[in-house]
Amino acid sequence: MSFNTFGRMLRVTTWGESHGKALGAVVDGCPPGIALTEADIQPFLDRRRPGQSRHVSPRQEPDRIEILSGTFEDDRTGGPLTTGAPISLIIRNEDARSGDYSAIRDSWRPGHADFTYDMKYGVRDYRGGGRSSARETAARVAAGAIARKVLGPSIRIRAALVQLGDQEIDRARWDWNDVDQNPLFSPDAAIVPDWEAALDQLRRDGSSTGGIVEVVASGLPAGWGAPVYAKLDADIAGAMMSIPAAKGVEIGAGFAAAAMRGEDAADEMRKGDDGPVFLSNANGGTLGGISTGQDLVVRFAVKPTSSIRIPRRTLTRDLDETTIETRGRHDPCVAIRAVPVGEAMLALTLADHYLLHRAQTGQSGEPD
Amino acid sequence: MSFNTFGRMLRVTTWGESHGKALGAVVDGCPPGIALTEADIQPFLDRRRPGQSRHVSPRQEPDRIEILSGTFEDDRTGGPLTTGAPISLIIRNEDARSGDYSAIRDSWRPGHADFTYDMKYGVRDYRGGGRSSARETAARVAAGAIARKVLGPSIRIRAALVQLGDQEIDRARWDWNDVDQNPLFSPDAAIVPDWEAALDQLRRDGSSTGGIVEVVASGLPAGWGAPVYAKLDADIAGAMMSIPAAKGVEIGAGFAAAAMRGEDAADEMRKGDDGPVFLSNANGGTLGGISTGQDLVVRFAVKPTSSIRIPRRTLTRDLDETTIETRGRHDPCVAIRAVPVGEAMLALTLADHYLLHRAQTGQSGEPD
Amino acid sequence: MSFNTFGRMLRVTTWGESHGKALGAVVDGCPPGIALTEADIQPFLDRRRPGQSRHVSPRQEPDRIEILSGTFEDDRTGGPLTTGAPISLIIRNEDARSGDYSAIRDSWRPGHADFTYDMKYGVRDYRGGGRSSARETAARVAAGAIARKVLGPSIRIRAALVQLGDQEIDRARWDWNDVDQNPLFSPDAAIVPDWEAALDQLRRDGSSTGGIVEVVASGLPAGWGAPVYAKLDADIAGAMMSIPAAKGVEIGAGFAAAAMRGEDAADEMRKGDDGPVFLSNANGGTLGGISTGQDLVVRFAVKPTSSIRIPRRTLTRDLDETTIETRGRHDPCVAIRAVPVGEAMLALTLADHYLLHRAQTGQSGEPD
Amino acid sequence: MSFNTFGRMLRVTTWGESHGKALGAVVDGCPPGIALTEADIQPFLDRRRPGQSRHVSPRQEPDRIEILSGTFEDDRTGGPLTTGAPISLIIRNEDARSGDYSAIRDSWRPGHADFTYDMKYGVRDYRGGGRSSARETAARVAAGAIARKVLGPSIRIRAALVQLGDQEIDRARWDWNDVDQNPLFSPDAAIVPDWEAALDQLRRDGSSTGGIVEVVASGLPAGWGAPVYAKLDADIAGAMMSIPAAKGVEIGAGFAAAAMRGEDAADEMRKGDDGPVFLSNANGGTLGGISTGQDLVVRFAVKPTSSIRIPRRTLTRDLDETTIETRGRHDPCVAIRAVPVGEAMLALTLADHYLLHRAQTGQSGEPD
Repeated sequence: MSFNTFGRMLRVTTWGESHGKALGAVVDGCPPGIALTEADIQPFLDRRRPGQSRHVSPRQEPDRIEILSGTFEDDRTGGPLTTGAPISLIIRNEDARSGDYSAIRDSWRPGHADFTYDMKYGVRDYRGGGRSSARETAARVAAGAIARKVLGPSIRIRAALVQLGDQEIDRARWDWNDVDQNPLFSPDAAIVPDWEAALDQLRRDGSSTGGIVEVVASGLPAGWGAPVYAKLDADIAGAMMSIPAAKGVEIGAGFAAAAMRGEDAADEMRKGDDGPVFLSNANGGTLGGISTGQDLVVRFAVKPTSSIRIPRRTLTRDLDETTIETRGRHDPCVAIRAVPVGEAMLALTLADHYLLHRAQTGQSGEPD
Repeated sequence: MSFNTFGRMLRVTTWGESHGKALGAVVDGCPPGIALTEADIQPFLDRRRPGQSRHVSPRQEPDRIEILSGTFEDDRTGGPLTTGAPISLIIRNEDARSGDYSAIRDSWRPGHADFTYDMKYGVRDYRGGGRSSARETAARVAAGAIARKVLGPSIRIRAALVQLGDQEIDRARWDWNDVDQNPLFSPDAAIVPDWEAALDQLRRDGSSTGGIVEVVASGLPAGWGAPVYAKLDADIAGAMMSIPAAKGVEIGAGFAAAAMRGEDAADEMRKGDDGPVFLSNANGGTLGGISTGQDLVVRFAVKPTSSIRIPRRTLTRDLDETTIETRGRHDPCVAIRAVPVGEAMLALTLADHYLLHRAQTGQSGEPD
Repeated sequence: MSFNTFGRMLRVTTWGESHGKALGAVVDGCPPGIALTEADIQPFLDRRRPGQSRHVSPRQEPDRIEILSGTFEDDRTGGPLTTGAPISLIIRNEDARSGDYSAIRDSWRPGHADFTYDMKYGVRDYRGGGRSSARETAARVAAGAIARKVLGPSIRIRAALVQLGDQEIDRARWDWNDVDQNPLFSPDAAIVPDWEAALDQLRRDGSSTGGIVEVVASGLPAGWGAPVYAKLDADIAGAMMSIPAAKGVEIGAGFAAAAMRGEDAADEMRKGDDGPVFLSNANGGTLGGISTGQDLVVRFAVKPTSSIRIPRRTLTRDLDETTIETRGRHDPCVAIRAVPVGEAMLALTLADHYLLHRAQTGQSGEPD
Repeated sequence: MSFNTFGRMLRVTTWGESHGKALGAVVDGCPPGIALTEADIQPFLDRRRPGQSRHVSPRQEPDRIEILSGTFEDDRTGGPLTTGAPISLIIRNEDARSGDYSAIRDSWRPGHADFTYDMKYGVRDYRGGGRSSARETAARVAAGAIARKVLGPSIRIRAALVQLGDQEIDRARWDWNDVDQNPLFSPDAAIVPDWEAALDQLRRDGSSTGGIVEVVASGLPAGWGAPVYAKLDADIAGAMMSIPAAKGVEIGAGFAAAAMRGEDAADEMRKGDDGPVFLSNANGGTLGGISTGQDLVVRFAVKPTSSIRIPRRTLTRDLDETTIETRGRHDPCVAIRAVPVGEAMLALTLADHYLLHRAQTGQSGEPD
């Protein structure tokens, strides 16, 4: 968690700008002996990449991942394995247009990091948002695929869009199988036409909207996490809030917990066939910063895309008043493509805590 | 952010259990030359300590702070100054009752960390929750007072309770002056009688409820924070979620941003008398993880106290089904005493970023 | 390794000044379930404390350790166990004389940190060296005792003084049993009278000298350590050089390796009864930053005590030329009392890598 | 200092194997606004790269550096500037021969990390030493060039070979101008023919030898560094010992300090024209872990190359006894090419402490 590095034990350092030569990640601390090729990573990038429906940015990026180091195909084994050395990942930018950037070069786009980067750094790669572009999340998704391999197949991490603009899904219709059957990652197939209509209207208006993503991890053992500043939920909150455009994070009942009574918020326990079971999950799978073994349930809110065609008042770098309308290739609702990013961040946080847990307890900490 | 240490540059390590001999903090990385005595810290502890109204735990702890190291009264200066050496703080536990703990020793209290600590550590100081007790936050508040000194007087950090149970304040009646005039830290004096009535009823019922705390920092310069994993908002989210019983964090418009349109969420800019001004603050004072110079506005949700007198179903450590009702000295709404804790966590996060900013930019980064 | 914290997984934060109220350490990341009381720590402090022979400082400090947190005596177990919570250790200063410090207050003692602390911090606790005093190493020794418990009994860490001034021991006479039988920690009993005569003469001269300490860890498994910046030897080098007055560190053949030929420096291997054996140990138990399973052999050089009675030329804080002679209670050769400190630093480094190893490989990494 | 990352504030993560596709580094935390192109880095790589004389490995690697991110050529400025975003550096391997590796695949080369990597990781890229190859130091040298830019021109960091095998230079003949005039980086031109003769003989013998490198930084202000575990000298010791084949590190008088008397080891001070001056530099430019402003003088010892043609006894991975003779392209004395690496590690350590100093003191900490 230092500038461009995420994690304590599984440390992911990302680099690259939206319209630079390439972007990538170095994944350090990955345990050895894990089978890993580009084919383990590419499908996750494919879910996130732009240009796949009319509801996301039309930028055409193949987002092809290449592994530059950290795996080795011993001629005595069946395929490349991680060696414990740092895994360097690279994705080349191919559709980075070198158009006219003078408007965003000289003015601060409202809602973007243009002003704050200028205040901090004085010099800024303004092309497509530079380092502050959500394009950086491609590197997160690639690293997240490695985190999944570290965690193994018994831990399942899935996400879905549960609210787009002001339209929430009907949880009674939740079906995980639906999520990858529609371009909006909705777990409620019935709401998709309404959401698409809303998006079409926003596009016509030159506007945008936000959304809420829910990420769920299943199969976790009890005992991962650590007090008091390395709490599992504290790390998750930091991870999700680091996603571009995120403005809120909650776990379990979340903000609704404020209005609950104690007897409803404290999940009761009974004895099940395989050990302790909980009768509810208001706490979302964590107590005192440590996993309970229940599903870990996290939601984060994404603000509307700030790049809109509606003219907005702003300043130039010379402090002259002006207006700006952002043209170019943008997502009317960035929350959609934040779905695989949320999964990646949860995978990274959990893999990190898995390794921490092994260190601190000497337990293998392995899921069953 | 490693186990019991918070911060990168201003590193605070807390220690101690609810019913142990003492609790404390070591504050490392504090710049030299800052005037500091116990009198700078005690008032913040006094705001947090129990036993001050019928609405909080009746435990009687003076919470007297003692500085053991890190300051020095040079006979050529007027009073103790920080020396750059680690500041060791200690608070003795004086009202730690050595009562009968057999119930919580052998059973897992629902909603508490008893089960998860047992799963992780196998051995657990069960007296009053041990390390997982919110009593640990006294050390945070003490360290937070030092963070305020690091930040200096021009940065003001204040918090208030904005929702208790399902009753929200009326923001039209917000008056910061009211906050310390009522035992519930409400900025809306008119709602206090309703909240007190609700708390009295909860106490009669042996139940509890949650709340929402809002923390605001004013006077920040633009430019503090850092992409992409050390974002100011990501660090704040982690800091707030590390507070015991916190279940959600949001910044600026927060979860409501999901339903906004792009033109409302992207705060427009105009030229003011002293430089850039924003026409709204939907982003809560941060863009791209870096401060804008507007007020930093953070809210976190606190779940209801899990220690209630209403019997709840649970298991013993031997996996026998049982029920438990938690007697003892508890807060019916821990959100109240979380108000000064939220302030402390924001102060610590900001002081940390202030020092990071100096390192990264060579700017003094000082507020005016 | 951040300011006053040592270690990555077993994190030790020390605090306190030579003539302050107390000094101490917080040990975070200690695994749970380890039997620990003050009696496990006190003997190591007793070896280091002053006033035990005419060859060390006559300051009378009982150096009594107190554990303030992090252990718990469950009434179902036989004695206090670590709980995984931070262990707070405190040692009170009892013989801190409040004498006349005006000389060292206003002038910079040559060879000490007075000048550099003033340049960095501007304010400085000059009493007895304040934070830069070797008294801080008492906290290291206490923490080192906990590190030994983490490592378990099969890893043995011992140290000895192998050179005092210009007099080296005869390695043919090395006997570990001698080390604690003489006040100079010599493994060569025959040299002790010569060393004592030298020390007596130095005391008469008002001068001092240096020495070389050798620290050896036995019983390590192969495989601890990590490339390329967390190498076991790199961490050991940093640990030893952090000891006050240390000016050099070497491992295995050390500086002598420069003059060796390749066929002598590369330890050959054969098959032993219990697996691989090495025919020599020029590499001192580490290859590529990872333990080989052979004895880990480390030496560090300690410069002469800078506090001497012979007048030395220096400056006042106002940059006036002056001379200073340091009176007070000082060790004529600080290398003597650095022996238990070297052991502690090696124990801390190894315990840290033991936990790292468990994280990275999932192997228990336990010694046999 | 975590696995493959060096530094706290200027964080360098290196990746890549000797015979993999490429190697590289990500430099995070570099301040913005520094002019930087490949031309600032390439000369340092050119000094380190193989194939430049008969005394080093004949491997032909152009070691061409490419900057992939972190700089931006604003069309309003004269050339690329750092932006504060992570700088990704890549060097492609071009002369990585895919020869017959079966000998080193199945046996552990004495003196190399083969055995320890196998013990730790189980899987290992054995081609040319994989991750444990000194080829990794190319990435360090590249990052070190950036560290020099951070430090600015007034801090000069130079290194030289001061001992090759058992032949030491004559310090009376030291001339920095000679260092780059001979392929052995000797500051004593007169000894070069003797060293070359020794190397020629070693090559004929199929053997190798070690050496000692001295690194000196000039122009430092007083006040950089930090007690007590982040001491400047402790960090330098760790940095130098992390260099492949390093077996010892010393600062100032180093190991010779053990035999000195206190009056000789404590550098006296007088008033000079520009402030305090020291009359000697036995402490090598650091006191109490903080720079004095004198030259920082560091030496490290490098063991002989372990890859020699003389057959050595070892084991196969199946624990069968065997002998091995390492053919291929090797340096008869790796200490030679360690000279620019030592410079890079000192530059990185100093740049890190420069940024830390700014954070902790708010002083610009700038050299004059």
